[in-house]
Amino acid sequence: MTITITAFERSPDGGKGLARDTRLRWALEETGQPYEVRLVSFRAMKEPAHLRLHPFGQIPTYEEGDLVLFETGAIVFHIASRHPGLLPDDPDARARAVMWMFAALNTVEPPVLELFPARVLDAGKPWAKERLPLVEERIRSRLGPLATRLGDADWLDGAFSAGDLMMASVLLRLRASGLLDEFPKLAAYVARAEARPAYQRAFAAQLAINAL
Amino acid sequence: MTITITAFERSPDGGKGLARDTRLRWALEETGQPYEVRLVSFRAMKEPAHLRLHPFGQIPTYEEGDLVLFETGAIVFHIASRHPGLLPDDPDARARAVMWMFAALNTVEPPVLELFPARVLDAGKPWAKERLPLVEERIRSRLGPLATRLGDADWLDGAFSAGDLMMASVLLRLRASGLLDEFPKLAAYVARAEARPAYQRAFAAQLAINAL
Repeated sequence: MTITITAFERSPDGGKGLARDTRLRWALEETGQPYEVRLVSFRAMKEPAHLRLHPFGQIPTYEEGDLVLFETGAIVFHIASRHPGLLPDDPDARARAVMWMFAALNTVEPPVLELFPARVLDAGKPWAKERLPLVEERIRSRLGPLATRLGDADWLDGAFSAGDLMMASVLLRLRASGLLDEFPKLAAYVARAEARPAYQRAFAAQLAINAL
Repeated sequence: MTITITAFERSPDGGKGLARDTRLRWALEETGQPYEVRLVSFRAMKEPAHLRLHPFGQIPTYEEGDLVLFETGAIVFHIASRHPGLLPDDPDARARAVMWMFAALNTVEPPVLELFPARVLDAGKPWAKERLPLVEERIRSRLGPLATRLGDADWLDGAFSAGDLMMASVLLRLRASGLLDEFPKLAAYVARAEARPAYQRAFAAQLAINAL
């Protein structure tokens, strides 16, 4: 059955690969699944046809026969659980890989997502100067323990998994800020992830659409 | 094998059931699994013994033989995938139940978690008055589409699932704010979830520890 995902007609990041369709493309490339992409404008995202796929009016979505999914974490998990390549066979190791997916999305990404508003959108607000250091400290409070847990390992728990795919995708958001470079083990971890051929193909595919 | 979870020695909410161990207790009750609880003080959470279980120094954790997990979403998913009661058998329906778990944790909960800092912790800060309405609007932008999608159904996708368990747990955080009551369908949904015997048992168990 054909897999179709949606992506921004024009990504706000201009092709840096930070839009969430990149995470799906990466998972599909790691598992060798062909897919099609339907581009959606900001206006179309809020119209009924798209809201039927995604009640919150965002991208990406995933369609495969009768199955319609939204929510990046759920889609990556679905891909990883249906096709070999992103989850270990051992049940306990599999549970830990899923744990790192949730940790990436629920423990690490929320403070990371506060950075752009705090640095850019609120820059002119009276509180910006006082609040930004608090936001950065919250991010460091996640990165420090994560770097400690990773230690000198290549990946978070044995072989590369959907947990690493998600964690690296989240950490990639920090590259421009300089915060990632404060944690050399994490910077090297992200570089290892980016060097994977599947990531390279996913990145190139989104860049082909979004390059300005 | 004995299941052991960790919980706050004394929950910051004084037994309102908002600490995340309640979500695990609820999942374990729905699936009929006995469990033990080890209480952890705020100091012990940051000490090496606990950090070996949870690198970010939080609760809850989950131990079952050699398996150690942290991250509430991952633990609820683990419980739901090993025991019947919280995930449908049909593969597509199962993928959608997982989707609602991720949606609860990644799309709905992040703005909800901003409310307490914005209302209470930042109350004396120069930005408080200007920022609070923005935080509340972000929450409404999630609750509105969620209420529309739920419509007149009892649960988000067919029978009660781990997705509903997680979504109701997130929405419960809003009760005291009055925001939930702006969306009567969601208030009724949460009331239905709370009325489940498994939730009642989970709530009573955490209250027995935390009642002041």
